[in-house]
Amino acid sequence: MKAIVFDEKLKLVNDYEKPVPQKGEALIRVTLAGICNTDYEITKGYMGYKGILGHEAVGIVEEINGGDKSLLGKRVVSEISYGCKSPECPYCAEKLYRHCPDRHTLGIWRKDGCFAEYFTMPVDVLFEVPDNVPDEQAVFVEPLAAACEITEQLHIKPFQKVIVLGDGKLGLIAALTLNAQNIDVTLVGKHQNKLDIAKKQGLKTKLLQDLQVKKEWDVVVEATGSISGFETALALTKPRGVLVLKSTVAASKEFNLAPVVIDEITVLGSRCGQFAPALRLLKSQRIDFKPLISAVYGVDDALEAFEKNKEKDTLKVLLKF
Amino acid sequence: MKAIVFDEKLKLVNDYEKPVPQKGEALIRVTLAGICNTDYEITKGYMGYKGILGHEAVGIVEEINGGDKSLLGKRVVSEISYGCKSPECPYCAEKLYRHCPDRHTLGIWRKDGCFAEYFTMPVDVLFEVPDNVPDEQAVFVEPLAAACEITEQLHIKPFQKVIVLGDGKLGLIAALTLNAQNIDVTLVGKHQNKLDIAKKQGLKTKLLQDLQVKKEWDVVVEATGSISGFETALALTKPRGVLVLKSTVAASKEFNLAPVVIDEITVLGSRCGQFAPALRLLKSQRIDFKPLISAVYGVDDALEAFEKNKEKDTLKVLLKF
Repeated sequence: MKAIVFDEKLKLVNDYEKPVPQKGEALIRVTLAGICNTDYEITKGYMGYKGILGHEAVGIVEEINGGDKSLLGKRVVSEISYGCKSPECPYCAEKLYRHCPDRHTLGIWRKDGCFAEYFTMPVDVLFEVPDNVPDEQAVFVEPLAAACEITEQLHIKPFQKVIVLGDGKLGLIAALTLNAQNIDVTLVGKHQNKLDIAKKQGLKTKLLQDLQVKKEWDVVVEATGSISGFETALALTKPRGVLVLKSTVAASKEFNLAPVVIDEITVLGSRCGQFAPALRLLKSQRIDFKPLISAVYGVDDALEAFEKNKEKDTLKVLLKF
Repeated sequence: MKAIVFDEKLKLVNDYEKPVPQKGEALIRVTLAGICNTDYEITKGYMGYKGILGHEAVGIVEEINGGDKSLLGKRVVSEISYGCKSPECPYCAEKLYRHCPDRHTLGIWRKDGCFAEYFTMPVDVLFEVPDNVPDEQAVFVEPLAAACEITEQLHIKPFQKVIVLGDGKLGLIAALTLNAQNIDVTLVGKHQNKLDIAKKQGLKTKLLQDLQVKKEWDVVVEATGSISGFETALALTKPRGVLVLKSTVAASKEFNLAPVVIDEITVLGSRCGQFAPALRLLKSQRIDFKPLISAVYGVDDALEAFEKNKEKDTLKVLLKF
């Protein structure tokens, strides 16, 4: 089968061996997949991963090895991690497979990914896609789940003011998701054209250069991935407020955490999320992801798609199988 | 009056003008005061503060300007901040004066401190010391309140495992305070003699060199003030656990917050606390602060006391007035 593989370098392999579902696993035929910045990070060495890339996809279940067969033939999406399921594992007991110390993560850690004609995953991390949700929307379920994670971790009260920093994919989806939950949210970024995507869906937006930096926000979502973004986020968080860290930040200069202590700020690391609430949101059609799609490539042009993904102005790049 | 003043340099002034209590304030005659590391930081430029140092003291109320006079003649301690008390200030409404944007803080910010024969503070931030608590214990109320702040901010459940890093004053008091609340706590440090202070009061302790660094702690309290301490704290916090940042840390090398996101860790900045729970703890006599007193100096030897405070092995240094 065709597969996009990273092994020291990124390549399109035409004769990769088709995977065989293990006991409890399904074989999924991919129809549409999405490139995430994590895929790009992996090609720069992140996680030391080698194998088929990709963790965002929609597909059809073609085979199930053992157990419940009800998903056979259905259109599904897959959570990205599965755990050890040992009865002693507190994370698996709570379905927090993404925190299981012995986890496998699709296309990121110890499990071939979904940038291929087929991939396998355990049946119990698959979810049927609602009929009214086309592939082009369903393919956003993973980043959408990561955005839903914010309110899984944090109780945002109806009177609280939330600001999202960063108008890339991550920031846009976080802001659209919070808005879809009737939370008072403002999106801030450097690109009017990207802010307009949110504005057209009813959000408050502001160019960074027009923002008054004052400690007045109850919740600040940092989605820029830059150290200056983190510092701005700190300067916006009010005393006893919460700074949600959605992007990984490595400081490259001297870095002071004193304001976190002085203002008793909570810095909340937030990563992936469960799919159930994301699928509810997709079904409600409260968010339109179409304006976030920058380009769709056929699998044969996958390397070109990765180049497109690197461009500064690109939002989501999809791969059609 | 005699006062220890910082004004570009630290000095003992013998003829400082005795303060006059403003409306709503009390005049307190100091009997015993404690040197905090913040005092030392101020002499190195922290907060740009100039004036009488000191924010830990016990004293007797000698005069009250207006209002309720019931504390006259009583032995009291004083919270360190008072706020604007404007009806629009959400922090003052919750008695979180330490977060009021227009606050004054004793010996730290816009208010002469308590390293003097007399100081003044608003009556409503004064608390009477219970009769069974001698000055030598009462003088610890401010750092004790800062330790009580941890459970004001964070619900630590009875089955959770807590580790405190750092066996200086801050770490010792934090660990003793958590233990006094029946929380399962282990204190880790580099100095057996300091750990023994906690051990003798029933705590579990461990030398840092003997500690297995695994992500298995629900709550990690960072009280070392060093960047390596913060990094160890991160490496000990289990996924979705809480790292309580008690000390201000400035990173001096490249610094990576990615683990906070990957493991969805909560970094909780924690500073000062309210006095009521600290006074309850003092009254219960569940903690013995005596072994934390390294030396007691008369006010005339205050500069010597500051030198003693700088020594690596010193815990609390007291000033007798």
